[in-house]
Amino acid sequence: MYVFEYEDDIIVVDCGSVFPKEDMLGVDLVIPDITYLMGKRDHIRGYLFTHGHEDHIGATPYILKQAPSHIYGTKLTMALVDLKLKEYRVEGIPMHVVQPRDTVQLGQFSCQFIHVSHSIAGACAIAITCPAGTVICSGDFKVDYTPIDGQITDLQTFAKYGEQGVLAFLCESTNVERSGYTMSELKVGETFENLFAQAGGRVIVAMFASNIHRMQMIIDNAIRYGRRVCFIGRSMVNVSRVAMSIGELRIPEGWLIDMDVLDDYPDNEVLVMTTGSQGEPMAGLTRMAYAEHRKLQIRQSDMVIISSTPIPGNEKFISRVINQLYRLGAQVIYSRMAEVHVSGHACQEEIKLLHALVRPKYFIPVHGEYRMMWQHAILAEAMGVPSQNIVIPELGQVIEMNQDVLALGEQVPVGGVLVDGLGVGDVGNVVLRDRKHLSQDGLLIVVLAIDRDEQKLVSGPDIVSRGFIYVKENEDIIDSTQELVRQILAKSSLEGDNWPELKNNIKDEVHRFIFDKIKRNPMILPIILDV
Amino acid sequence: MYVFEYEDDIIVVDCGSVFPKEDMLGVDLVIPDITYLMGKRDHIRGYLFTHGHEDHIGATPYILKQAPSHIYGTKLTMALVDLKLKEYRVEGIPMHVVQPRDTVQLGQFSCQFIHVSHSIAGACAIAITCPAGTVICSGDFKVDYTPIDGQITDLQTFAKYGEQGVLAFLCESTNVERSGYTMSELKVGETFENLFAQAGGRVIVAMFASNIHRMQMIIDNAIRYGRRVCFIGRSMVNVSRVAMSIGELRIPEGWLIDMDVLDDYPDNEVLVMTTGSQGEPMAGLTRMAYAEHRKLQIRQSDMVIISSTPIPGNEKFISRVINQLYRLGAQVIYSRMAEVHVSGHACQEEIKLLHALVRPKYFIPVHGEYRMMWQHAILAEAMGVPSQNIVIPELGQVIEMNQDVLALGEQVPVGGVLVDGLGVGDVGNVVLRDRKHLSQDGLLIVVLAIDRDEQKLVSGPDIVSRGFIYVKENEDIIDSTQELVRQILAKSSLEGDNWPELKNNIKDEVHRFIFDKIKRNPMILPIILDV
Repeated sequence: MYVFEYEDDIIVVDCGSVFPKEDMLGVDLVIPDITYLMGKRDHIRGYLFTHGHEDHIGATPYILKQAPSHIYGTKLTMALVDLKLKEYRVEGIPMHVVQPRDTVQLGQFSCQFIHVSHSIAGACAIAITCPAGTVICSGDFKVDYTPIDGQITDLQTFAKYGEQGVLAFLCESTNVERSGYTMSELKVGETFENLFAQAGGRVIVAMFASNIHRMQMIIDNAIRYGRRVCFIGRSMVNVSRVAMSIGELRIPEGWLIDMDVLDDYPDNEVLVMTTGSQGEPMAGLTRMAYAEHRKLQIRQSDMVIISSTPIPGNEKFISRVINQLYRLGAQVIYSRMAEVHVSGHACQEEIKLLHALVRPKYFIPVHGEYRMMWQHAILAEAMGVPSQNIVIPELGQVIEMNQDVLALGEQVPVGGVLVDGLGVGDVGNVVLRDRKHLSQDGLLIVVLAIDRDEQKLVSGPDIVSRGFIYVKENEDIIDSTQELVRQILAKSSLEGDNWPELKNNIKDEVHRFIFDKIKRNPMILPIILDV
Repeated sequence: MYVFEYEDDIIVVDCGSVFPKEDMLGVDLVIPDITYLMGKRDHIRGYLFTHGHEDHIGATPYILKQAPSHIYGTKLTMALVDLKLKEYRVEGIPMHVVQPRDTVQLGQFSCQFIHVSHSIAGACAIAITCPAGTVICSGDFKVDYTPIDGQITDLQTFAKYGEQGVLAFLCESTNVERSGYTMSELKVGETFENLFAQAGGRVIVAMFASNIHRMQMIIDNAIRYGRRVCFIGRSMVNVSRVAMSIGELRIPEGWLIDMDVLDDYPDNEVLVMTTGSQGEPMAGLTRMAYAEHRKLQIRQSDMVIISSTPIPGNEKFISRVINQLYRLGAQVIYSRMAEVHVSGHACQEEIKLLHALVRPKYFIPVHGEYRMMWQHAILAEAMGVPSQNIVIPELGQVIEMNQDVLALGEQVPVGGVLVDGLGVGDVGNVVLRDRKHLSQDGLLIVVLAIDRDEQKLVSGPDIVSRGFIYVKENEDIIDSTQELVRQILAKSSLEGDNWPELKNNIKDEVHRFIFDKIKRNPMILPIILDV
């Protein structure tokens, strides 16, 4: 999420969510903290979206609920945002579909959408002009000279801005570590063409549902080989439906079939498009691989094509899915074996091309690990941007600029807001720390009831444990813990005022006892009931 | 772990541990189940080790404690096993150091160690001959024609066995998906030479401590450039000490310095060798990157070289370490940028070379994901092994063979035994399921005390939660849960016999209530104290 501010006007570019880090146990989603925006809610003139991937639109329902305004994007992007707003029942957001090269006037900002190639249809860069100058946000892009839809990244418009003068360029950095060019989608098309020619049974393709162009290419190939198309998996079904409804995806009448009638067709007349290309536990391909799918059982004659590369962190999951598919006897084709996937992001030479076209005065690398932004800064410097005109931004860092100055402003409150179920922001460090603790060694509860007036133990101590040890086979450790607590109670005052200290003693001594005995550190939870 | 059995003789090759999978929460280590071996403990003639990596020796203290016998391996391997046995206080194991080409007679098995190159010194394949024929276990290997120590994989001995006739070849499959050859360590040496020539400040290298040859190469380079060597990190200090004590690592008198005197030397006269090349949370480099190291603060003039590639699953951790180092201003060199690492495993052409030398009758791909073993089988078939002479082994599958037959025997009990602290095998599915549940949404305890005789509630219901929600800001949900339980109690029989059902009702209704309210599913734990 990028916020642009000129006098009393604010516009926001993108509104993404990210997946929780491994230590954010139980968290579903991480969205941006918009404390700063909330303080200036009246200044927001609109939200602009570069494209419809989750890391650019995933937080929209949460953010637009709190800070509603007009939203702008191309057809597919808006359709995907709409899907999201409907799912979360956020209503009354005025939605504006733009065409590439359209210009939207928002307060003193004039914003032009510029078509770029990416792994989703309808991706755009945005050129934002205000009295201080023009800033170009690249969005996510690559320069594919032979894209599936024939629309090459709009180099002319980038060139036009470069000629007019660009104050600052915010360019994505995902693939800046890779030299050369990203291969064209055409290559992927050729691979699929060959695979369809070979396949004797069903072809099952797992990929991201949002890569509509690749989907179209695969479906066109399938139909050429006489195969009907069946979508399996929630996001595959939803996104393909949306894409068809707006004309981004075209399947001739009669060639789309339902999962329920799949077996009515011979195996060599079927293409299944499904989710799970990252080995996600609940997705279509994962269920098929573990023979847990309700409707589709993998057969030895199936050819399974995984058209993606693992996102860092997912390698193990997808690797297990592939192993399982092999075990079921299927033929599995994945990116290490054949060119069934290309990246959606520009490599070094493509990035340089955009720099050369845009010729910005200031350069701000965005969208990537810190090390990538750092390397992107080096690249920009090599292309002639003086180092004092480059800023590697930290989250929440205000950057002030005009033709004369590039300066760091204040640091506004930022950070990830954790979403867990319906709760937004109610899971913080304490809760996460407890989840982490519980996940490692479980817990051990010591319950007792004390008659406060008589200062007498009336029940317990009872020991209850979960996730600590298999109790049935380890009764001695539970028994001796109980005995230890009895001893602590015998030598302690049971007076009401002493209960906090008593609890602490139980916690400390039980902790020490258990750790000595078995080198584990469960959460110890003493509970005293007042009778 | 491979078990070979001929009549009443058993030998075991390797005894490794693996890291727990992500869903094995809180587990430290996974070791093999040796139920089968325990039943034939008297038949065990000895344990042979191919090399000293954790996945080949990590389980030794646990296994040798239960099923002790003689152990055999090269100098470094035995030294590393010894370190482990001492740490776990396993005593009385007769240890035998072998030289490559040595043959050990164990019952009717005659076992020859064959030198191979790998990312640890002292690695060997093992040729095992008994009256049924010869089986060769490749161990982990590559064919490096210019290894640091000058000792090329012993092709002659493999050739000799190939000429005599090999019954079966068990060959590792780690890199079978990669075409061509693994680059020589010489390349890594050249890169380091260049980097030392450039470095103006301290050089800090993170790598696996066990790669003694690479360590020697880096240290030799450092000394040539007038740098003293300082080891930081527990396994780096321990392993280098062991390697020096057995003469595998040589550092001239006076060139090894202690961490405490590091700052007495100018920055350009220092080489630090440390752990953490995988971004492990407690390791040297990770602490330095997060500015948490007691003795070493990263400086802008430091050159940090990460001489490894991420093991699948560790990408994110190492990526964060690199980002942090960049933030501190250090120059960071890692495998994507320069050839500071090569794999320790053979690629396709090297694997083919061994197949061509050994010319086995039967082929059994081992050591790799199922998909890799499957592809290795295809490779062997392409090299002339008939498909009926190839078996892709499943864990615990007995394979029976002689010159006439290759057959699948019984399936013996196997699987991972989980080690958590001092407990071995006491964490099973129930405990893991509870840890998983607790880690996702925490827990909510409902405690009450009932007077069994009077069938009367005498205390509670009290609600205690951990890892569920930030209670201070969400008192209403706790209060309304308490109210709900009160209502359940009011309409329930408090008779002792009814308590199990009462607990179930509380569990179900609270679960439903919480899920409706906030779409979370904490573990609900009703506890009734009998007063």
